[in-house]
Amino acid sequence: MKHKIYIVGMGPGEEAMMTMQAYDTLLACDTIIGYQVYLKLLGEAFAEKEQLSTPMKQERERCILCFEKAREGKKVSLICSGDAGVYGMASLMYEIGESYPDCELSVVPGVTAALSGAACLGAPLNHDFCVISLSDLLTPWEKIEKRLRAAADGDFAIAIYNPSSRKRADYLMRACDILLETVEETRPCGYVENIGRDESKMELCTLKELRDRQVNMFTTVFIGNSETKIIDGHLVTKRGYHI
Amino acid sequence: MKHKIYIVGMGPGEEAMMTMQAYDTLLACDTIIGYQVYLKLLGEAFAEKEQLSTPMKQERERCILCFEKAREGKKVSLICSGDAGVYGMASLMYEIGESYPDCELSVVPGVTAALSGAACLGAPLNHDFCVISLSDLLTPWEKIEKRLRAAADGDFAIAIYNPSSRKRADYLMRACDILLETVEETRPCGYVENIGRDESKMELCTLKELRDRQVNMFTTVFIGNSETKIIDGHLVTKRGYHI
Repeated sequence: MKHKIYIVGMGPGEEAMMTMQAYDTLLACDTIIGYQVYLKLLGEAFAEKEQLSTPMKQERERCILCFEKAREGKKVSLICSGDAGVYGMASLMYEIGESYPDCELSVVPGVTAALSGAACLGAPLNHDFCVISLSDLLTPWEKIEKRLRAAADGDFAIAIYNPSSRKRADYLMRACDILLETVEETRPCGYVENIGRDESKMELCTLKELRDRQVNMFTTVFIGNSETKIIDGHLVTKRGYHI
Repeated sequence: MKHKIYIVGMGPGEEAMMTMQAYDTLLACDTIIGYQVYLKLLGEAFAEKEQLSTPMKQERERCILCFEKAREGKKVSLICSGDAGVYGMASLMYEIGESYPDCELSVVPGVTAALSGAACLGAPLNHDFCVISLSDLLTPWEKIEKRLRAAADGDFAIAIYNPSSRKRADYLMRACDILLETVEETRPCGYVENIGRDESKMELCTLKELRDRQVNMFTTVFIGNSETKIIDGHLVTKRGYHI
């Protein structure tokens, strides 16, 4: 029988935003591995579990740790924020897992920031949408630009992950400038900082205003499609052309 | 104080796939309103609640029922499958809610089929992706075609909702033909039927093979991007150009 490893999406932060399947999967494990920030979000119920971490940018080592622990006979979960398969560790686990044919992976989905952030703002993704990360750590910036243009061409509502960081302070501005090539300046937008945490904060603005906003790396940004409206302080994308 | 109404995403089906927040929100309500099929998925814990429904295509009436019940002083939740804000009822509730200024809406997010289906297949949405519905009930087919072309242009991984119905038996074929204008025939794809239910079934195939598959209306289809691979029977999209 293969060693089973679970890759668990824990949602945006607070424990209540986990699915019951995710919670129960973690409870049934011996060892929970994850980035330190996410381990700290786990509550009392998990205090007795073996909790292991590797620093940021040591994702590969974190994955290997999962396989090694599983081979020791531990029941292992790797936790990711949001959904494990949306900019999460799931794909890296499958890639590295090719070297561990005695291990079997299972992904437990979670509420990714596009969904939890959208719920805070109203319903900006209620029709066809794109999810785009502005991080060029693993993707060439030219490809990110191409995707932004394609998203605008297709009149998709857009959720933007990783809109900013210390090294990429002007990336959201650059992304907005690309969208503004074809999208009107008054297009309704919004953003949410620290979704699912105490210090959560949200804002609505136009695309032109968004261009000049400073957002931090814990922010998810939403850009409406041509049918998105502000209704009573909420960002709402219609389901279609009649209701 | 306003009458509070919750619009709750219940995930793909089985109760364990709900977030604890969604579960607790429903438990705290007097009245749960939803499409009959979704009400039936609720377990014993909700048997004592007032459960109300309207038939398919009477979504507007279902929303109005929520507001009327809330005005009667009931604590009301409207349930949607997946996420309430992804092709769900959230935006319609905000639109109709303009006529009920004494009511306040709150969206409780859930695991939409793009995420739960992706977890079944592996990690097909582990980088930038689009979600597109093939239903032309509320969207002109020309717009759907435009979005499919834009998604292919942008090299997005794609999750397709509503790929088929009795009246639209050839829509998935038509969508694949549009993608095949620019995407290679061997592009790895997959699909999942009845996610989160006992009779769930999944398949991997190429884009050319997908074109000729018959899928039912309870299926979510995934089309890889140019970096998607099959790894040990799973559909995996790399996080970027180096790992």
